[in-house]
Amino acid sequence: MTRVGDAPLLQTTVAPEWIDYNGHMNDAAYARVFSLACDALMEAIGLDDAVRRASQRTIYTLQVMLHYFHEAKLGEAIAVSARVLERDAKRLRIWMTMTRARDGERLAASEQLLLSVDTSGPSPRAAPWSADVAEALARLAARAEGIDLPPEAGRGITLRRGKS
Amino acid sequence: MTRVGDAPLLQTTVAPEWIDYNGHMNDAAYARVFSLACDALMEAIGLDDAVRRASQRTIYTLQVMLHYFHEAKLGEAIAVSARVLERDAKRLRIWMTMTRARDGERLAASEQLLLSVDTSGPSPRAAPWSADVAEALARLAARAEGIDLPPEAGRGITLRRGKS
Repeated sequence: MTRVGDAPLLQTTVAPEWIDYNGHMNDAAYARVFSLACDALMEAIGLDDAVRRASQRTIYTLQVMLHYFHEAKLGEAIAVSARVLERDAKRLRIWMTMTRARDGERLAASEQLLLSVDTSGPSPRAAPWSADVAEALARLAARAEGIDLPPEAGRGITLRRGKS
Repeated sequence: MTRVGDAPLLQTTVAPEWIDYNGHMNDAAYARVFSLACDALMEAIGLDDAVRRASQRTIYTLQVMLHYFHEAKLGEAIAVSARVLERDAKRLRIWMTMTRARDGERLAASEQLLLSVDTSGPSPRAAPWSADVAEALARLAARAEGIDLPPEAGRGITLRRGKS
């Protein structure tokens, strides 16, 4: 199991198909990278593909915030790490940070609200985390205890805060 | 010029490469669709590819919120519309809604904070909207006047609000 907090969830390189007309990584490609990191997080908490198929449990995404801090350029090595912000019986709120490998510069961050879903019935429905997953989430959450929240966590979008 | 508010910015069909292991449109594919809609918005306000090249002005994305309301399935026809929430000399805050064509069901929404950027110098820098773009934005904003804000606009992510 990946020890989230110790090692990045995902390490990759900015691919040519992620570059847009502005010559930098497109906004939707950041979402793609964070989505791949979220897949890695699911593996880390015991919800890999085999478990998903056997248990008919999965995760649906309810809400995603993306913060763009710096441009990512073609071929740059990047990494994504994650921490738990909050959780309850069926939901998980996480914070992911994308950094540039060469200098650790924070390129972007994503706050995500995720829902535990049971797909065994006629239509998908919210369901409590299985005991194994709940335990894995508790271990993950313990790693973030006492660490300051990212200043952007929980914030919505407005023009009135900050200057560009 | 597309008359935003009258016609959708973007109409498309859920593509096979957008479907994930959950059998529905992947969270990052929604971001892709909203990014394409944002490209269409740029054309609608007079920042198409030719103008971007000639003027060395473009838009960078500062922040994106995605709300996932319903699953989008393979082959479904979808449409994205947009409205202006706020703007200032260099920035634009918009709200986009993705609907299912057959019944108008709201599948997702995205709130985005966009920055006017001048790429003519050694490095990109924030710059006021050109007069033409500012006028186009004023016309767009006028279309949304008096229309209630979407209830989710400006909201951050938390577990404490609502139930799943």
